[in-house]
Amino acid sequence: MKKVAVIMGSDSDLPIVEKGINVLKEYGIPFEVHVYSAHRTPKETSDFVNNAKTNGFGVIIAAAGMAAHLAGAVAANTVLPVIGIPISCKNTGGMDALLATVQMPSGIPVATVAIDGAANAALLAVQILALEDGDLYEKLLKAREKGAEKVLLKNKEVEEKFNN
Amino acid sequence: MKKVAVIMGSDSDLPIVEKGINVLKEYGIPFEVHVYSAHRTPKETSDFVNNAKTNGFGVIIAAAGMAAHLAGAVAANTVLPVIGIPISCKNTGGMDALLATVQMPSGIPVATVAIDGAANAALLAVQILALEDGDLYEKLLKAREKGAEKVLLKNKEVEEKFNN
Amino acid sequence: MKKVAVIMGSDSDLPIVEKGINVLKEYGIPFEVHVYSAHRTPKETSDFVNNAKTNGFGVIIAAAGMAAHLAGAVAANTVLPVIGIPISCKNTGGMDALLATVQMPSGIPVATVAIDGAANAALLAVQILALEDGDLYEKLLKAREKGAEKVLLKNKEVEEKFNN
Amino acid sequence: MKKVAVIMGSDSDLPIVEKGINVLKEYGIPFEVHVYSAHRTPKETSDFVNNAKTNGFGVIIAAAGMAAHLAGAVAANTVLPVIGIPISCKNTGGMDALLATVQMPSGIPVATVAIDGAANAALLAVQILALEDGDLYEKLLKAREKGAEKVLLKNKEVEEKFNN
Amino acid sequence: MKKVAVIMGSDSDLPIVEKGINVLKEYGIPFEVHVYSAHRTPKETSDFVNNAKTNGFGVIIAAAGMAAHLAGAVAANTVLPVIGIPISCKNTGGMDALLATVQMPSGIPVATVAIDGAANAALLAVQILALEDGDLYEKLLKAREKGAEKVLLKNKEVEEKFNN
Amino acid sequence: MKKVAVIMGSDSDLPIVEKGINVLKEYGIPFEVHVYSAHRTPKETSDFVNNAKTNGFGVIIAAAGMAAHLAGAVAANTVLPVIGIPISCKNTGGMDALLATVQMPSGIPVATVAIDGAANAALLAVQILALEDGDLYEKLLKAREKGAEKVLLKNKEVEEKFNN
Amino acid sequence: MKKVAVIMGSDSDLPIVEKGINVLKEYGIPFEVHVYSAHRTPKETSDFVNNAKTNGFGVIIAAAGMAAHLAGAVAANTVLPVIGIPISCKNTGGMDALLATVQMPSGIPVATVAIDGAANAALLAVQILALEDGDLYEKLLKAREKGAEKVLLKNKEVEEKFNN
Amino acid sequence: MKKVAVIMGSDSDLPIVEKGINVLKEYGIPFEVHVYSAHRTPKETSDFVNNAKTNGFGVIIAAAGMAAHLAGAVAANTVLPVIGIPISCKNTGGMDALLATVQMPSGIPVATVAIDGAANAALLAVQILALEDGDLYEKLLKAREKGAEKVLLKNKEVEEKFNN
Repeated sequence: MKKVAVIMGSDSDLPIVEKGINVLKEYGIPFEVHVYSAHRTPKETSDFVNNAKTNGFGVIIAAAGMAAHLAGAVAANTVLPVIGIPISCKNTGGMDALLATVQMPSGIPVATVAIDGAANAALLAVQILALEDGDLYEKLLKAREKGAEKVLLKNKEVEEKFNN
Repeated sequence: MKKVAVIMGSDSDLPIVEKGINVLKEYGIPFEVHVYSAHRTPKETSDFVNNAKTNGFGVIIAAAGMAAHLAGAVAANTVLPVIGIPISCKNTGGMDALLATVQMPSGIPVATVAIDGAANAALLAVQILALEDGDLYEKLLKAREKGAEKVLLKNKEVEEKFNN
Repeated sequence: MKKVAVIMGSDSDLPIVEKGINVLKEYGIPFEVHVYSAHRTPKETSDFVNNAKTNGFGVIIAAAGMAAHLAGAVAANTVLPVIGIPISCKNTGGMDALLATVQMPSGIPVATVAIDGAANAALLAVQILALEDGDLYEKLLKAREKGAEKVLLKNKEVEEKFNN
Repeated sequence: MKKVAVIMGSDSDLPIVEKGINVLKEYGIPFEVHVYSAHRTPKETSDFVNNAKTNGFGVIIAAAGMAAHLAGAVAANTVLPVIGIPISCKNTGGMDALLATVQMPSGIPVATVAIDGAANAALLAVQILALEDGDLYEKLLKAREKGAEKVLLKNKEVEEKFNN
Repeated sequence: MKKVAVIMGSDSDLPIVEKGINVLKEYGIPFEVHVYSAHRTPKETSDFVNNAKTNGFGVIIAAAGMAAHLAGAVAANTVLPVIGIPISCKNTGGMDALLATVQMPSGIPVATVAIDGAANAALLAVQILALEDGDLYEKLLKAREKGAEKVLLKNKEVEEKFNN
Repeated sequence: MKKVAVIMGSDSDLPIVEKGINVLKEYGIPFEVHVYSAHRTPKETSDFVNNAKTNGFGVIIAAAGMAAHLAGAVAANTVLPVIGIPISCKNTGGMDALLATVQMPSGIPVATVAIDGAANAALLAVQILALEDGDLYEKLLKAREKGAEKVLLKNKEVEEKFNN
Repeated sequence: MKKVAVIMGSDSDLPIVEKGINVLKEYGIPFEVHVYSAHRTPKETSDFVNNAKTNGFGVIIAAAGMAAHLAGAVAANTVLPVIGIPISCKNTGGMDALLATVQMPSGIPVATVAIDGAANAALLAVQILALEDGDLYEKLLKAREKGAEKVLLKNKEVEEKFNN
Repeated sequence: MKKVAVIMGSDSDLPIVEKGINVLKEYGIPFEVHVYSAHRTPKETSDFVNNAKTNGFGVIIAAAGMAAHLAGAVAANTVLPVIGIPISCKNTGGMDALLATVQMPSGIPVATVAIDGAANAALLAVQILALEDGDLYEKLLKAREKGAEKVLLKNKEVEEKFNN
């Protein structure tokens, strides 16, 4: 199976990004995690990305905050699907990272998820890989059902508390 | 090859969405275009989405403006990758549609592109399908090169105008 | 009397929503509370809403955060009045939920209250039901008077502290 | 049947507000239209509102722009349901009017619709009145169906244009 | 000397407003403090304001949060200068209150100060009253000098710490 | 009578500022108009302001756009009341000018009016001067009445068009 | 003298950027203009920047819109001073470009000017080069004086029109 | 070597500004730190700036919050390069300071860095001074390399934790 690369611009993003890593583990997706900065290690970033296809990667997830260029810098060096996670910061709540990640020019798309939405970024990667993997697709369906069951369980709890 | 579904919430979104349709044509991707509204035709929307996998679709693109629920409503009914295009409107410039499309809760990702970014939405769909299609992948690489050449041509024009 | 349905997208919204439930209790309004997610349990959500009228509901209150689609998804399946409560989150302060709730397209209104404004959502439901219930109307008038008295009491305290 | 009052803060709001008036006409709702300003005619505004119940009104719609106080000023003088329409202006796109209309303090709700959402404001009023009027309720259902049909017609046109 | 009225929409605004009250005390300005809500006690608010001139007031300061209508409601009932203090809240940081206070329609001005800027609101009132009171004007000049001295003292401390 | 100074940061602000000048003329207020820029002519700006009191000015109105420092720069050099008009620009709609004008630090107030609110800035100046001028006060009351009458006239027109 | 490089992300930015080029011409600064895109021609961009010092450049100006990565991508590859011009677009007014340009992480500064502020970007470059060039410094002083004179001329025109 | 002046509008900005001072120390740049307020000590501010060139300064860094006029007021009095640091505050997250610092009118540039970006402001000053100082330039290159090494070290740690 193709691997997923998870790149973060700074190791301070790890607590958020880890929620996505856990999703990849849950689905048994082969993955690699890296810290590469679009600004501090531009060459290492583009080297990694340029070789990503050859090295067996199918999807690249990039997480960064503030003037979040990482996902765009990754996308500029590959035609593999790139998923961007805008990371929040105290002053702007992540609106800077969201706009810097999503407002990409024509020709270089970045699939952007919610601010700090690392779990969904990983899930999107799984959905992409599941297109050619029936077992993975089934797992996604089951997880979706479980997600629904969890809501319905909570519904039952709330119903019991308030309705009778 | 898997098909791409392009859904828009209103036919008034067509002038924007058409830029994405043209990209799909360029790459020879089989596709279908539909107008389904998350709010005005919720049943038709979910019916279409529930059958999308069976009907041969691999990726669904959803475009909507204002309280742009369409992409989320599509994503709620499938585990196929869903790409959301926030459509701008005069009053808010599309910030409402961007936030309503991208800020999805954990478990239901929407791959969001720029406000009015229909061409990139289609390109992202092509990139996803190209994961298992070497010819498509080559076409993407060539288009990327052409994009670069176009910039370099413009560079030459500008250089000739200003530098000598 | 017609019942009020209170739906929240996640049980994590309960601490906010409970302020609305307490208002309904205060006015002796029959009500039901549910957890249904527009994205995680779309079928249960629309099933509940499609039967709401038959099951004796007159008003539906829907609370959700982020890309808050719940109120819109409810409104898409009923012509009963739907009241939306945008729930705040840390990163955006609830501006995403406010826009995703209030910016509904023509034909599918959602009566939106303030960010986290659960008490007012419930009060609005009471005002709607009071249109055909003189006793309820009188209770609302009395509560309004009490609200004024409470302000005037605070006024007296502040006057005594500062003016003499 | 109870009447609907439509108040606008300035006659310059009429082009927007008229879309709501047309909805009321369509549904055969008895209504009155007035220009009262929360700031320029505060006494006339509160006099009208204080007598609204006695004069046969069931719902009050208030439209205003900028520091849009009208809906709140109306709501402060009645316990009838009050619906607020934030009117856009060039500089802020209506975000000032939206926040000034929706962010009401606890105890004084305003049912807020989208910026310039006059048609939905009127529709919400119809939905409220339809709670005790089966014919009106049926009309709303039929209009909803027609709205769906219109979308599906557009869908057919778009399908014919692009899919074959 | 003319009195200054300080009105707040809720006693929860007192911790902020008190900074303004202290400024009035410092300058020996006669003042009264009240809690009147534009929405909960509209009649008491307009009664107070309508009699303000007769009761010896020269300037009215109004502080309120969220859909902050108080200053506008005061200004609607008097041609005395009205100063508005937008009070911050957790979700919006006070942007709602700022816009609801400052974006007044032509004909009804509100002199708006910074979010939570109670001290400046009081100082502005003093500046207005000082137009016809030479002693007060001198006090303002001296306070301004003291403010400068305080900065220069801090400058000296910082210079000693870093420059040598 | 004390004079009002009207300063604008650029003569391109004149079309907006002129609405305020007309108000001053209407009320027969002695005034002077100047173009001084906080950034391009800082010395001339502070010279004018430092002599404003001696030269018979009672209130200073300052209009500027973008990083609108003019009102603050004026206020830094006088303890006369300073009124700030944030001027809109195409890109930001004037939010930059509003924040740069209103968010003044403690000790240096600027009485800020709405974006492009030149008429209200002038009216506020008149209200301040009217504190010691009974005739002016009466004129303000009459204008307020006329403003109300104008609204009620429009009300009559609208009533005749829609209600019967 | 060291040269100034002016890079724009797209030739559609030229109408804005040209205002900066004209400033460089006015001051007789040697310069080169290029079109390089951070996303479409990442290699050409970094190649140019990596050789900029050797090729005689002292300052690099980079202009880009939307998720404006160009200035950051340039700054990531040089320790020469980099000046960023955020270019406006219709939907967001340039707030996306401003945040994507200015919110750089620690270690990689971009000297950001106003949205569409190309003239100031060039002027800043001149100011930097003037640090070691007395003639240039004198030219800047003279231009500043001329700027002041222009304001004072406009002041005279306005004074003649309104004051007498 | 030319000195760098670091001015802050209030000593409460020191905890942020100190990060920039430390950078200047690291690079052995001669510097002076001052507290001057554009509003509370306008004369001292402009006196210092007017003499800055004569007193051996080459670059001026100015930090301020809210309606952050300091950098602009400094830039208005010198043609030396001026670097502005917008300081965050609780209510607005620093968006007011960012806009008030960066949105300068044509002719008076301020090189703006990120909200609270004091380290980058200092680094930018070093980059400017390094244009004529080969040793400083080498130090910047080395620091850049060290920054990259630090990222790569973190990368190794993360790789060891997650990849094997």
